[in-house]
Amino acid sequence: MPVMTTAELMVFLDREFPQAATAGMEIEHLDDRTIRLRLPTDEQHLRPGGTVSGPTLVWLADVGFYLLILGQLGPVALAVTTNLNINFMRKPKAASQLVGEGRLLKLGRSLAVGDFTIWNDGQSEPVAHATMTYSIPRRSKG
Amino acid sequence: MPVMTTAELMVFLDREFPQAATAGMEIEHLDDRTIRLRLPTDEQHLRPGGTVSGPTLVWLADVGFYLLILGQLGPVALAVTTNLNINFMRKPKAASQLVGEGRLLKLGRSLAVGDFTIWNDGQSEPVAHATMTYSIPRRSKG
Amino acid sequence: MPVMTTAELMVFLDREFPQAATAGMEIEHLDDRTIRLRLPTDEQHLRPGGTVSGPTLVWLADVGFYLLILGQLGPVALAVTTNLNINFMRKPKAASQLVGEGRLLKLGRSLAVGDFTIWNDGQSEPVAHATMTYSIPRRSKG
Amino acid sequence: MPVMTTAELMVFLDREFPQAATAGMEIEHLDDRTIRLRLPTDEQHLRPGGTVSGPTLVWLADVGFYLLILGQLGPVALAVTTNLNINFMRKPKAASQLVGEGRLLKLGRSLAVGDFTIWNDGQSEPVAHATMTYSIPRRSKG
Repeated sequence: MPVMTTAELMVFLDREFPQAATAGMEIEHLDDRTIRLRLPTDEQHLRPGGTVSGPTLVWLADVGFYLLILGQLGPVALAVTTNLNINFMRKPKAASQLVGEGRLLKLGRSLAVGDFTIWNDGQSEPVAHATMTYSIPRRSKG
Repeated sequence: MPVMTTAELMVFLDREFPQAATAGMEIEHLDDRTIRLRLPTDEQHLRPGGTVSGPTLVWLADVGFYLLILGQLGPVALAVTTNLNINFMRKPKAASQLVGEGRLLKLGRSLAVGDFTIWNDGQSEPVAHATMTYSIPRRSKG
Repeated sequence: MPVMTTAELMVFLDREFPQAATAGMEIEHLDDRTIRLRLPTDEQHLRPGGTVSGPTLVWLADVGFYLLILGQLGPVALAVTTNLNINFMRKPKAASQLVGEGRLLKLGRSLAVGDFTIWNDGQSEPVAHATMTYSIPRRSKG
Repeated sequence: MPVMTTAELMVFLDREFPQAATAGMEIEHLDDRTIRLRLPTDEQHLRPGGTVSGPTLVWLADVGFYLLILGQLGPVALAVTTNLNINFMRKPKAASQLVGEGRLLKLGRSLAVGDFTIWNDGQSEPVAHATMTYSIPRRSKG
């Protein structure tokens, strides 16, 4: 069972990343292996042509997988991304919400590996898929 | 619905890759989006220490995703891998079968993208996870 | 020889990405194979702890490689990123300029592949290294 | 300065990977940051159509970067690959030698990161480019 609730995760995120583009982000689901997020896109996420920018998709995958790890380890963890691989597969629509699902593939002592898929809400074909590795700092005992 | 059966895929594979290490490989499942394979490991796949070698895992992910694409496009397709990203997460055991599951994330006119996860049979934690892009040759009409 | 000068590239970038975080960015060098950029970091690139954020590094690699391709193809090209793989290796310093070098590994008809390395100015150990694939739209003849 | 000579590296490789496809492989150069290898291709590396197989290219990049790390750490190290990302850019020719160059981007206490580029001997355009992460086991002191 996760050691943090979705509400606790959102409080932590707001405090640690005050300038983050998390306005309106919702964690719909969290368990030992998966997380599901929803993000309304607005002006700050868009690029010319009205599509959601690549960095916004990278950021959503990265922060989503971070929350999934944090949910298992608790708020003391200071995990950092060491590797991110992302495939951009379709143009995301601007006038839509993004939905993202993360999956934990490994949670070891020093590394966590997982993937994260992003869809436009209501569509079955994903817009992007990322695989990530996080380095987990050594935890003190007791 | 796939345009090739699993039996037709195995015939195609044996003919095109006669020296391939496919001895004993089985396609357990194939549909529009996913494939499931089983591979008994033997001497030729092992490295010192009795573990399955990294190149064997790369090869299984690559051939598995290739069969998934081929199942959708038919035997004329000559798709080639352009990008492969793989995370090795646990040591695979030698005295075991490998089970692999592929997932099609995009099947476009010129590119196919998907991922492939590999387990030791009977274990819930994956040993490796790969994401791949295949380039699909332009098809003639008619 | 590149078909666009570094000055033309900067004009194009400012017009197409008016909100982009390119304030103060400079292209120090451009030839058929390589590009070298310099970016002063400021408030908008930072995250708590005073380090440069991961998305800023992703963005710099992506825009840097985009400019390298554009320099070869001219301003009509609308190349889009299809794959990005990045390794974060060291914490970038805030009170410093970032220097980035891109390298073209393949410029084909439909795909361009290259890598991009980022340093803190004056240090020999890189902070991040990215490999990218861009899809190049079919060009009309004449 | 490396702690192992190129001759010592080849002895180590032959002993640890007796069945490896290293027949005829030569280390042309090794220093603190880079390695340069040469591999004649023969029957066992080929696939139908007379081109060098993808797994051979993956294996060459992996073993080449492994030798570069080993040259710095000495023969006791048991580093294992945790992530490999490879772009296949051109068809390698069969009747040719492959030349590979590795570059160390980070050699930390627990992770090493680098890239490896492969050419057909005598050609300027690379056939493949890989980026890899190796996990380095904790070393005992003294």
